[in-house]
Amino acid sequence: MNDTNYQDTYQHPVIDPLHKGLGAYQAPLAASEVKSLQWNLLREEVSLPTAVLYEERIQHNLEWMQQFVTEYGVKLAPHGKTTMAPKLFARQLAGGAWGITLATAHQTRVAYQHGVRRIIMANQLVGKQNMTVIADLLKDPSFAFYCLVDSVEGVDLLGAFFKAHQQKISVLLELGPVGGRTGVRTAEQQSAVLEAIARWKDHVVLAGIEIYEGVLKEEAEIRQFLQRAVNCAKELAQAGKFAEHAAQLPVILTGAGTAWYDVVADEFSKADIGLPLDVVLRPGCYLTHDVGVYRASQEQIQTRNPIARKMRSTLQPALQLWAYVQSIPESGKAIIALGKRDAAFDAGLPLPALHYRPGNSAPSATPSHWAVTGMMDQHAYMTVADGDDIKVGDMIAFDISHPCLTFDKWRQISVINPQYDVIDVVQTFF
Amino acid sequence: MNDTNYQDTYQHPVIDPLHKGLGAYQAPLAASEVKSLQWNLLREEVSLPTAVLYEERIQHNLEWMQQFVTEYGVKLAPHGKTTMAPKLFARQLAGGAWGITLATAHQTRVAYQHGVRRIIMANQLVGKQNMTVIADLLKDPSFAFYCLVDSVEGVDLLGAFFKAHQQKISVLLELGPVGGRTGVRTAEQQSAVLEAIARWKDHVVLAGIEIYEGVLKEEAEIRQFLQRAVNCAKELAQAGKFAEHAAQLPVILTGAGTAWYDVVADEFSKADIGLPLDVVLRPGCYLTHDVGVYRASQEQIQTRNPIARKMRSTLQPALQLWAYVQSIPESGKAIIALGKRDAAFDAGLPLPALHYRPGNSAPSATPSHWAVTGMMDQHAYMTVADGDDIKVGDMIAFDISHPCLTFDKWRQISVINPQYDVIDVVQTFF
Repeated sequence: MNDTNYQDTYQHPVIDPLHKGLGAYQAPLAASEVKSLQWNLLREEVSLPTAVLYEERIQHNLEWMQQFVTEYGVKLAPHGKTTMAPKLFARQLAGGAWGITLATAHQTRVAYQHGVRRIIMANQLVGKQNMTVIADLLKDPSFAFYCLVDSVEGVDLLGAFFKAHQQKISVLLELGPVGGRTGVRTAEQQSAVLEAIARWKDHVVLAGIEIYEGVLKEEAEIRQFLQRAVNCAKELAQAGKFAEHAAQLPVILTGAGTAWYDVVADEFSKADIGLPLDVVLRPGCYLTHDVGVYRASQEQIQTRNPIARKMRSTLQPALQLWAYVQSIPESGKAIIALGKRDAAFDAGLPLPALHYRPGNSAPSATPSHWAVTGMMDQHAYMTVADGDDIKVGDMIAFDISHPCLTFDKWRQISVINPQYDVIDVVQTFF
Repeated sequence: MNDTNYQDTYQHPVIDPLHKGLGAYQAPLAASEVKSLQWNLLREEVSLPTAVLYEERIQHNLEWMQQFVTEYGVKLAPHGKTTMAPKLFARQLAGGAWGITLATAHQTRVAYQHGVRRIIMANQLVGKQNMTVIADLLKDPSFAFYCLVDSVEGVDLLGAFFKAHQQKISVLLELGPVGGRTGVRTAEQQSAVLEAIARWKDHVVLAGIEIYEGVLKEEAEIRQFLQRAVNCAKELAQAGKFAEHAAQLPVILTGAGTAWYDVVADEFSKADIGLPLDVVLRPGCYLTHDVGVYRASQEQIQTRNPIARKMRSTLQPALQLWAYVQSIPESGKAIIALGKRDAAFDAGLPLPALHYRPGNSAPSATPSHWAVTGMMDQHAYMTVADGDDIKVGDMIAFDISHPCLTFDKWRQISVINPQYDVIDVVQTFF
């Protein structure tokens, strides 16, 4: 298969009947043909368990976040590691996103291959083969790529590699709080990294400052950390450290996982470093939202942030898992054909949301006392009460907590309309 | 694409450069061509993080378990849900396995499509589309398939479906302990299920008894539960409940996840039900083993089981994850580019095993005080000590606990020889 065909394959993606959670078809098929097959979830035309995205809610969330960043005059580079679904990246970009954030060289290649041309890899780029992946992509002059640096060793490895390849790589200095994850802690570390960048000046270009505030827990310490980043950007701008990058493009100042994006927008949007500046937020989970950790953090945002309040709506959970009741072997216990292979379980177990008996007209809300109490690889234990109207063969829809670790359980995810028709299929590339 | 091409695709599987953890290649490629690319892990020719299978240890484990069941005169249907790697299923069958166990209709289709023709689906088969998948496969008269039943509702749904399709489905009665997972608890439930099977006698055929003892914790209660299954099989044999199946094939008596397979072999191999009997064990994790939950349970087996002792060897951990040190931002803390996207974390975190600095001659064992203390989606926190010889760009190999939830993070897994050459690639179908 030559390069042209290869490109073609990814631009007209084929879905595979050997992957779980779809309807009946006998041979690989273009995702665009799925709608014509007219699968309906309630007519049991999809193999459960299945993961579904609710089209209207995805679109709502996409527009909500874009409006939020626009109100602040900042830019959006959604973290693509959450979904690893290029079809969703394309919608995020079409909706106004500045670029896509990713976590690894592999993820960067997936996004590039599907047309993304501005990427922040919010991690250090380490390893010969990973650098080779990026070096190959950087042969395309239209590709803008930024990765992080936080150590002399890391800068030296990058410098030596890209010098040998006669290429340049753009980097963001990562700042980190003591006790946190990656990122320079001290002024001494920072100076040493900047000196290393200067030593490789024809091959490593400093383009901005990056932080991940999600390792901190309190608003006050987060605002303090954000101020440190702003002050650092200002200091480095004054010292001419961004000169090469700033001659052509705005300096980048970027932060924000999904829980504190409003505080990051508030602090960073006020930054004045004396140079053109792109403030870039990197939330990942907003697109599907959830009913667990991210609902909790979004409720905080709706309370504390004036722009979110002004918007008079909030993010909506847009990803559910549907599964069958497989056994009700003893009083009070239903066993569901849904397991750790299908759903995140690290930040709360799936929550029963809808109950549907095939043949009925519509799903109904599940009683509030139904709860998942444990999961195995392929099973969930759900507590019910004696006398509840539930039987083997019933369908249950579950809301989830932690979209990232749910997406990576599925290679193909149905997109459905309010009538539960499958109108599209989204592929993931983990 | 017609059916012939489709079959062809799966018989000559193509690996995809958009999936993580492999070396450099520009276009999809037959897995059989990978060896000729001569990627070597230590020469950094593979993108990390990566998952690798050690060929010699896989082969050792495969032969070890086959010898164990042969000594007991019982049969092996390895649980394929662990790896979902048809190439490994084929090796297990070639090595002497009686069949493959799977957990869902989707998994059954994957195995069938790759040539497996005897499958126990160790679950209830629920849902119209899932039944359709199985009904399609059963059009092949060479395909032997068994699923579980534990409720009247379940039998009635199966009976109505397979009657409408003018087909027969073979089922195993599942017994379960009170407080356990699926399976009938009481004599009344058992009778009701048997009566339901009798009502659908031209479409639902009782072929044997199934249990999953892994929900129990103590050897004594497990032996008691196994005796219940033997007694049930005997009682049903005497009552003629297996008559249709037994006219052509041995009755099936099956149990055993990975932790108690020796006790199941011991109890079930002594069973005499007055009819030809296939005792089938269904361990899944033995092929790769681990250094966590399964090492602990195997140590128990080596202690208590005379045949395992006689074999004078044990299972070997055969699956490792390799990743880079990405940052050492503060004293005592290394951040590894390996996360919940790459490794199981539900039964113990990955354990550092080997340390390799690119350019050195060989990896060395990691100091015993290096330990993973936490993981995020794409990062692991590893504790080290001041003064340890570790730096950014070093490679660390991690042993894992819980193979199942590690396999499902990888679509393509390298198989390596003792020189760390990639000699094959195994694809997974989750």
